[in-house]
Amino acid sequence: MLYGIGLGPGDPELLTLKAVRILKESVKVFVPGEMAAELVRPYVTEEPEILDFPMIHDEQKLKEIWTANAENVAEYARKGDVAFCLIGDPNFFSTFTHMKKVMADVAPDVEVETVPGISSITSCAARMGTAVETSFEVHDGVSDINYLIHLKARHPQEIIKRFEKEGYTEFIFAERLFSDKEIIIKGKENIPEEGNYFSIVYGKK
Amino acid sequence: MLYGIGLGPGDPELLTLKAVRILKESVKVFVPGEMAAELVRPYVTEEPEILDFPMIHDEQKLKEIWTANAENVAEYARKGDVAFCLIGDPNFFSTFTHMKKVMADVAPDVEVETVPGISSITSCAARMGTAVETSFEVHDGVSDINYLIHLKARHPQEIIKRFEKEGYTEFIFAERLFSDKEIIIKGKENIPEEGNYFSIVYGKK
Repeated sequence: MLYGIGLGPGDPELLTLKAVRILKESVKVFVPGEMAAELVRPYVTEEPEILDFPMIHDEQKLKEIWTANAENVAEYARKGDVAFCLIGDPNFFSTFTHMKKVMADVAPDVEVETVPGISSITSCAARMGTAVETSFEVHDGVSDINYLIHLKARHPQEIIKRFEKEGYTEFIFAERLFSDKEIIIKGKENIPEEGNYFSIVYGKK
Repeated sequence: MLYGIGLGPGDPELLTLKAVRILKESVKVFVPGEMAAELVRPYVTEEPEILDFPMIHDEQKLKEIWTANAENVAEYARKGDVAFCLIGDPNFFSTFTHMKKVMADVAPDVEVETVPGISSITSCAARMGTAVETSFEVHDGVSDINYLIHLKARHPQEIIKRFEKEGYTEFIFAERLFSDKEIIIKGKENIPEEGNYFSIVYGKK
């Protein structure tokens, strides 16, 4: 089993209890750099292995490096729980997202799960002493807006209709995430008409 | 000192180490409801106090309730560290944001700090098994988009110029948040021309 773990923005105290537990239980811990290595060291007995993802443009070379890294991780993930730990959150603008895709190709037998971390998206408001009280945009400056997270989705099908006009094509509906009442429904045709205060619609272009 | 603490989406393991430490050190812990109360109980000796924020429309009555709640919290916050704990993150669509404003009015002597929590914004992707690789929007369905979080802000002044045209008027620049190299600069005129991969521009309409 491979866990993609978010370590938060860099403060050692902003790791979650779940991240700490999985780190302690893992047979092997991988990180993409020294900043992450420093955060995990207090919880591991063996030195974390730093995987190199060089910033190069040669696509063939890049593919080779990613494949080798995934095969290395897969070897350990077949023997026990393995953690790949990153700064921030593993599903938002993250190296782990790409690792997961390569893993599905080179080692489809390896089960993958992610553990969310405090991302810079929310931690910035805490340190800036400010707030976000209404809808907002997150930009990385180089891409178009391709994702939508609609909170408090009381009328999911209405939301879907509206966002289809803006080019969104894939939708997932969720409620009470991480609780024993959790609901996750994929595909527009399966999503209900009515949601509640805890409902979320995720949309992708 | 009053801490606004994010407890994450509801999973007891998704509390941060910092949340747990402050809960243990607090002389008094407040929560807005039973779901938050359940998450904090393992770390407190005294039963957390549930503050009632009724969903009513009578503005005068609401103001009275908020003022009374803030005065109650302030009384303890003058004696030691006090925690007000909420599901999610205290700065994003949160009751705490409003509490902070009322506190500034009724008890400006009380220092306030927030501790970020795993918000539903990022945790949804983890549970849905999906990812967010480019820019995205977060909607609550009832408001317009009034905030911007620009990550990897290599050219902050260019970003500001672009977003001023869309009606953004207030800007904060930050780098390496929660680290000992943290930089936070408020006000357009003080923000540098050059940023880096770790720079963030926060904009408000």
